[in-house]
Amino acid sequence: MASAIIVAAGKGTRMGRGVDKLFLEVAGRPVVAHTWGRFDSIALIKEIVVVVREGMEGAFRGLAAEHGYRKPFKIVGGGKERQDSVWNGLEALGPDEKLVAIQDGARPCTGAPVIEAALAAAAETGAAVAAQRITDTIKESDGSTLIVRNVDRSRLWSVQTPQAFRVEVIRKALAAVRERGLLVTDDTAACELIGQPVRLVEGAAPNPKVTTRADLPLIEMLLAGVK
Amino acid sequence: MASAIIVAAGKGTRMGRGVDKLFLEVAGRPVVAHTWGRFDSIALIKEIVVVVREGMEGAFRGLAAEHGYRKPFKIVGGGKERQDSVWNGLEALGPDEKLVAIQDGARPCTGAPVIEAALAAAAETGAAVAAQRITDTIKESDGSTLIVRNVDRSRLWSVQTPQAFRVEVIRKALAAVRERGLLVTDDTAACELIGQPVRLVEGAAPNPKVTTRADLPLIEMLLAGVK
Repeated sequence: MASAIIVAAGKGTRMGRGVDKLFLEVAGRPVVAHTWGRFDSIALIKEIVVVVREGMEGAFRGLAAEHGYRKPFKIVGGGKERQDSVWNGLEALGPDEKLVAIQDGARPCTGAPVIEAALAAAAETGAAVAAQRITDTIKESDGSTLIVRNVDRSRLWSVQTPQAFRVEVIRKALAAVRERGLLVTDDTAACELIGQPVRLVEGAAPNPKVTTRADLPLIEMLLAGVK
Repeated sequence: MASAIIVAAGKGTRMGRGVDKLFLEVAGRPVVAHTWGRFDSIALIKEIVVVVREGMEGAFRGLAAEHGYRKPFKIVGGGKERQDSVWNGLEALGPDEKLVAIQDGARPCTGAPVIEAALAAAAETGAAVAAQRITDTIKESDGSTLIVRNVDRSRLWSVQTPQAFRVEVIRKALAAVRERGLLVTDDTAACELIGQPVRLVEGAAPNPKVTTRADLPLIEMLLAGVK
């Protein structure tokens, strides 16, 4: 059995003040309601912890009431950075939890197969992340829009969420990050610090993140048609 | 005014013998018919050169007849490698051509705005390529599925097609590649050899390439809904 932490505490400043990308409507419901629903329907998941921005607790309780999620959940407050929010989510897990899947609230298309595969890989290796091979040719720019070099893509993967861990592993990794006062780009980067190997788990379907409104038409189509 | 070269000479071996990914049906017509239609409908494009595999000339003439493309076109035979096919396409251009957009036949979703922007940037800089910023976190693997390091994505772009050039520039760049007996990953990589700067032109819409059948559902939806 495993838990899920849905990180839904982002400031979403790229969309402007007062607009929360997680509550944009897509395919008939808010983005984060799709994400929550994905985890709610997976047998392996026992409990869901949703980490939210201060003041948003009521909105998320309303979401749960409206969509009738079946699994037990907790709403907890987020921290300053993403890693602080994940930490708060971990603190809210029950004492017997062995495995956890950590998910961006803004990725509503994550499929059950990749969630289950990431949890299985985490049980085996300790840490795993949903990922896709880079298939396009990659170039490095000069910081603006001129190409400076071709990049060998054969070993490159783009990583998404869920990032899944044995609970003891991610606790230890994030504790190391916090002790040293570091900022990490994602949860698996914290594993590097403690020498914990991380397994890449290839997702079959696109798994985009809502970053701007321009992402919504594609996500709407993925939610409607690509299972 | 500009020309287009559509590179449609790939062996497509990833899909198995006897299956040509360019002729898979998507949204009611073969993949490459969408690609051709995109360039056929752009005012700036004067002529289209389609580079095909030996024995496929008839199939492509049939495609043109069936879909009623309006612009003049030439069908020419491909070479051993992609760069040889592009070279053959360049040889077939009229003597007065100044600008050329080189397009993968297997990218049916390329939009008019990015084609026009790439041609405009090529007129100014000499070489340009449709590209998208890397927004996901990128990891380097050990060659299998274990992560070895985090990659700084801030200067990384994935490049697609069209790749657009002043004709004299791409001729000179590919001649240098051929003289030295090199293999390049894409047309802009040839520009590096002659010190020709290449401009990245950001595409707003997804512009995927058909590589396997699994790519088709997403492409079908993009063709139906995302303009």
